This record gives sequence, C-alpha cells and structure tokens, in this order.
Amino acid sequence: MKFERSITMNVLVIGANGQIGQKVVNLLQESEEHTVKAMVRKEEQASALAKQGVESVVASLEDSVDELANAITGSDAVIFTAGSGGKTGSDKTLLVDLDGAVKTVEASEKLGINRYVMVSAFQANNRKNWNDSLLPYYAAKHYADKALEASSLSYTIVRPGGLLNEEGTGKVAIGEQLDRGSVPREDVAQVVVDSLTTQNVNNRAFDLTSGDTPIKEALQRL
Amino acid sequence: MKFERSITMNVLVIGANGQIGQKVVNLLQESEEHTVKAMVRKEEQASALAKQGVESVVASLEDSVDELANAITGSDAVIFTAGSGGKTGSDKTLLVDLDGAVKTVEASEKLGINRYVMVSAFQANNRKNWNDSLLPYYAAKHYADKALEASSLSYTIVRPGGLLNEEGTGKVAIGEQLDRGSVPREDVAQVVVDSLTTQNVNNRAFDLTSGDTPIKEALQRL
Repeated sequence: MKFERSITMNVLVIGANGQIGQKVVNLLQESEEHTVKAMVRKEEQASALAKQGVESVVASLEDSVDELANAITGSDAVIFTAGSGGKTGSDKTLLVDLDGAVKTVEASEKLGINRYVMVSAFQANNRKNWNDSLLPYYAAKHYADKALEASSLSYTIVRPGGLLNEEGTGKVAIGEQLDRGSVPREDVAQVVVDSLTTQNVNNRAFDLTSGDTPIKEALQRL
Repeated sequence: MKFERSITMNVLVIGANGQIGQKVVNLLQESEEHTVKAMVRKEEQASALAKQGVESVVASLEDSVDELANAITGSDAVIFTAGSGGKTGSDKTLLVDLDGAVKTVEASEKLGINRYVMVSAFQANNRKNWNDSLLPYYAAKHYADKALEASSLSYTIVRPGGLLNEEGTGKVAIGEQLDRGSVPREDVAQVVVDSLTTQNVNNRAFDLTSGDTPIKEALQRL
C-alpha cells in the first residue's frame, strides 16, 4: 500500500524500442502509478512487447500529424525518446529527429495532452557547445526543443550527457548548464519517468549527468 | 528627380551569388532608393562584385552568430536568398538552410535591424504540400520561417513557386495559399525588393506565382 501522493497517467513512449526507450517502458510497466503504451515502428517490435505484457501502437514519425494523433490518443502524457540513429543520413535527422518530433508535439496539442517529456541532447540549447562531429543532430534537437517550448504543452526537456550502458546509480546532477559529463541510460530513464509527476520541472529544460544527488531530490531542487 | 515617397535603406543580400541573389543585387544597385551590400562565401565572388561596383562582405552561414552580426552590421535591412543547393547533403540543409538562416535572424535581432525579407519555398508552411522529392529542404525552410516569425524582426516571407529563368513579366499572383505554379526569378527578385518598403507586407508570408497583377499592386492588396 502506498501512502505518498500519486498521479496516475496513461503514458505513451515514443521510441520505445530504443536503448533508453526500453528502460523507460520497463520502469513504467513496474510502476504502480502509471500505465504504459509503447509506440514502435514495426509489427515485430509490437509482438515482442505484447509477449512482455506491454500494449503498443505501430506508427512512424514520418506519418502525418493526424496519423500520429491517432497513435497518441488516449494518453495523458507523452515521452519522446526516439532518434533516427547514426545509420541513416541527415535527411532522416531532419524528418524524424526534428519534424517527426514536432509533429508529435502538434498532435499532442490537438489532443490536449497534459505532459510531454522530451529526451534531448546535452547543451542542445547552446550552439557553441554542440558536438562538432554531430552538428546536424544537435541542430535538429535544438529546433525540436524550441518548438516544444513554444507549444501549449506542459513540457520537460532532459538533456543527458554521454550515454553509458552501465548500471544506474540513482544519483545525478541536474542544471541549466552543467560541465560535460556522462550518465547511465538507466538513470536517464528514471529521470524521465520521475519528471512526469514532478511539478517543479514543468516547463523546464536541463542538462543531466551523473552526480551526487538522488534523482527525485535533484528534480525538486532544480 | 523623384516625387514619390521613398525610404532609403542599406540592404544586405545574403546569398548574393545565387540565381535570385544576383538579380536582387542588380535591382538594388540600379535603385535610387537603396544601397546594397552583398554577402558571399568566397573572396573571388567579392572581387567579381567589386568590379561590378558592388560592395561585399565575405562570410559563411556556418559562422557563429557573432561573426554573422559583424557581416550584417551597418545594414538597415536583410534579404535572405541563400541556399545550400542540391549538390550538398542534408547535413548542409540543416546547417545552412535552417540553422544558418536562423543565425542571421538572431544576429539581426541583436543589431536591431528594421526589416528582414526571406526567400522561402512554395507552401513551406504547409507540410501536406511539401514537394515529396525535397522533404528535408522543405522542413528546413519551414523551421527557418517559423523562427523568423517568432523573432522580434519586421519580416516578410516570400514563397515562390517553380523558379524559371525566363524574363520577368512584372505580373504576379500573391496569396496565403495559391495553386501550384511557376514564376521567373526576375519577378521573384522584384517582389523581394519591393517588399522592403511595402508596409502592407510587414509580418506577412505569402506564396508567389506568375499572375495578372502588377507586383506593387499585388503586394498592396495582399
């Protein structure tokens, strides 16, 4: 039995098959607060999730705003952690990481979604700190974040440092401009999930690295 | 001697070596109202313009906002008609057509520039009408236009149809959503130059094709 104040949300995870996405789905599936739906690109991904007991919807970020609204409908919150990845070209960076993300923002606005949590990139807001070898990706994330900030949604933008596969520590640093650092994907996933219900990070954007502060406390203190 | 009301502006043309850019420079050079400065990427382009009697500044849209502000400083108005072109990849579409354009908007804001005229693409504002074979380009133009609209600048966004090299007719159609059509680059250049001083198109965006209405009248009537 839980005595803390809890907010129950139907959460749609966009990019649920990604490395962070899978961890987010697992956390939400385990959570007593929320229910999760996974948005994935392929039927076989949906089948694998069904076996795991996770509901999913098949859609592509290259679909129209209306089609994406159909995928999102029924959700109270959206977590965006999709990415076109390093194997495709900058055309997909523009059409998926930027325009795809913005279409889900527009679809969420249409549907009156309460919360939108975006997984962005470290210092994507600060052109001078973009990673020289990934400039198109940083530009795409920057403009997607700007569109989210300009939207009517209650948003949180999480900008993690270098992503690690090692186990999470549950302790992080969160701030509007941090020194470059790294962070386990497991901790990123926990920050994203806890951001859903932490009032203090509504309409905020922050860098995230490993640190000394427990995640909930770090979000409360931002 | 001119008796019409005239507004004299120092106009910077970004992308002055492009096909529309060259025509814009020529119109401004001939004009009795304005003086022109050309922003080009290469010293040899600057030398060629100097022989033609046109002042220029060498800068790249991949430079920083501060460097671009140095190139723009002293101008009353900016015309953006640059494009990375079809020979480079979508990485340049993101970094030049989108982020490069937005950096000139930010630099112009810093400098308190009065007017900014953007050459965009037909129906770039309307995702459903983007040219299927040029989706990344349309996406880049769309988000550059959105950033300009969200800026503090007094802007005009011109979205020409299919660009022709034939002689201009001086007659056009202008509207917020036109049927697809084409238009000579010469007419686009004249529309852009006349937009500088036509109060009615301040903070407006419009499609442009060939039509039946003289350019000044079409701008007045929008």
